[in-house]
Amino acid sequence: MTHSQHQDIRFLLDRIDIQDVIARYSLGQDSHQGEDGNILEQWDKTFSLDAQVDYSAAGGTVGSYRELARWMRGDANTPGSMGAFSHWQHMLGLPNVSITGDTASARTDFYATHRSRNGDAPPVHFNAAGAFVDELIRTGDGWRIRHRRLVLYFADPLQIAVQV
Amino acid sequence: MTHSQHQDIRFLLDRIDIQDVIARYSLGQDSHQGEDGNILEQWDKTFSLDAQVDYSAAGGTVGSYRELARWMRGDANTPGSMGAFSHWQHMLGLPNVSITGDTASARTDFYATHRSRNGDAPPVHFNAAGAFVDELIRTGDGWRIRHRRLVLYFADPLQIAVQV
Amino acid sequence: MTHSQHQDIRFLLDRIDIQDVIARYSLGQDSHQGEDGNILEQWDKTFSLDAQVDYSAAGGTVGSYRELARWMRGDANTPGSMGAFSHWQHMLGLPNVSITGDTASARTDFYATHRSRNGDAPPVHFNAAGAFVDELIRTGDGWRIRHRRLVLYFADPLQIAVQV
Repeated sequence: MTHSQHQDIRFLLDRIDIQDVIARYSLGQDSHQGEDGNILEQWDKTFSLDAQVDYSAAGGTVGSYRELARWMRGDANTPGSMGAFSHWQHMLGLPNVSITGDTASARTDFYATHRSRNGDAPPVHFNAAGAFVDELIRTGDGWRIRHRRLVLYFADPLQIAVQV
Repeated sequence: MTHSQHQDIRFLLDRIDIQDVIARYSLGQDSHQGEDGNILEQWDKTFSLDAQVDYSAAGGTVGSYRELARWMRGDANTPGSMGAFSHWQHMLGLPNVSITGDTASARTDFYATHRSRNGDAPPVHFNAAGAFVDELIRTGDGWRIRHRRLVLYFADPLQIAVQV
Repeated sequence: MTHSQHQDIRFLLDRIDIQDVIARYSLGQDSHQGEDGNILEQWDKTFSLDAQVDYSAAGGTVGSYRELARWMRGDANTPGSMGAFSHWQHMLGLPNVSITGDTASARTDFYATHRSRNGDAPPVHFNAAGAFVDELIRTGDGWRIRHRRLVLYFADPLQIAVQV
């Protein structure tokens, strides 16, 4: 096997692994809905230990990924920002990825939809379109996100039709 | 070529093929809209012959994939459940895949949107967010889904704005 | 390395490259929002020089990809059709791809969402579901789209809920 062929296989494995890490973020969000807040089950294998995030565009965390988890899901003392919703989904588009040795960058469109909790007001779908802009690093356990910046295109509550 | 490199190529081919099988399900739905009910053109190459599905979360089929097709699209005697809509789309996110020899499991977010038929009521977009949880098997014709369970996060009709 | 293994690696690299080209189209749209109309930064690496598009299903361009860019984004003299919106996103599903030597075909579902500009009327989300049907060609710079036909399933303005 030539050096070039070895590099081709390395590139292909890297691309699949990077896609999997990006997908694991959403799996963390979406396989833990409502009262189940255990997103770290996936996120501890998504982010590097020292990973930083910038969700300021959505009024959210600038800090570690565990602070992001706490902001979203709350802790024993404080409800999280996701508490405004009962269910959600974080759809991902096709990532744009660039690899340079043991680091990589990626930009992936997301379409996040949320159903508001039943309360006094009629429920809505809160739909947010944006992109995750990531820097990744190769670790002994595979690729991990070490910096994620959320870009927000737009977000609004959409009205649910009254069925007659 | 080392054993390891052979395995790497096998893994990569498997991953692409599994993604293609999952994509083919939506192609079956979305390339046959309205009165065109021929989704088996794709689904016969998507599911194994003995595949079982569980769409109970959406009030649908627990049974074979051909029973699922009949429930959705109807037959000569009975209209299908999709008859409430004129058009639809089954968007897929990035699959989370795990392969063990000749079997695999996958979980893929879907965002299914539907436009209700023009009738007495104003049309709506019926939008459903969920996930396909699949068990797959390697066959002589490639990977096939042999069990699919539909997970539903939420689904509601969204109101179309009146243009003035 | 056997001929077959060489072909496997070629196939895998082709599939990733074709996915990247399809993703680059949306990156062109979505990384240039509002007044930033420079989508050719990505599209010149997405389409072949002689590429033709057929967006007639959306009332759009039948012609070159640069004419499509002008129709959407306008030029010094004329506003583009995207001027009706302030922000947008072009989500992509999993592509269905078939490669034959140096040509390929692909069909990829898209879910395009747009926020209308604030004007006299309340803003809406204009959501369009459809598919890109592509013919691609292998060039010295990688795969490029040489023909794209837009298929439209449905498109409507969705009402934003009034928050009280």
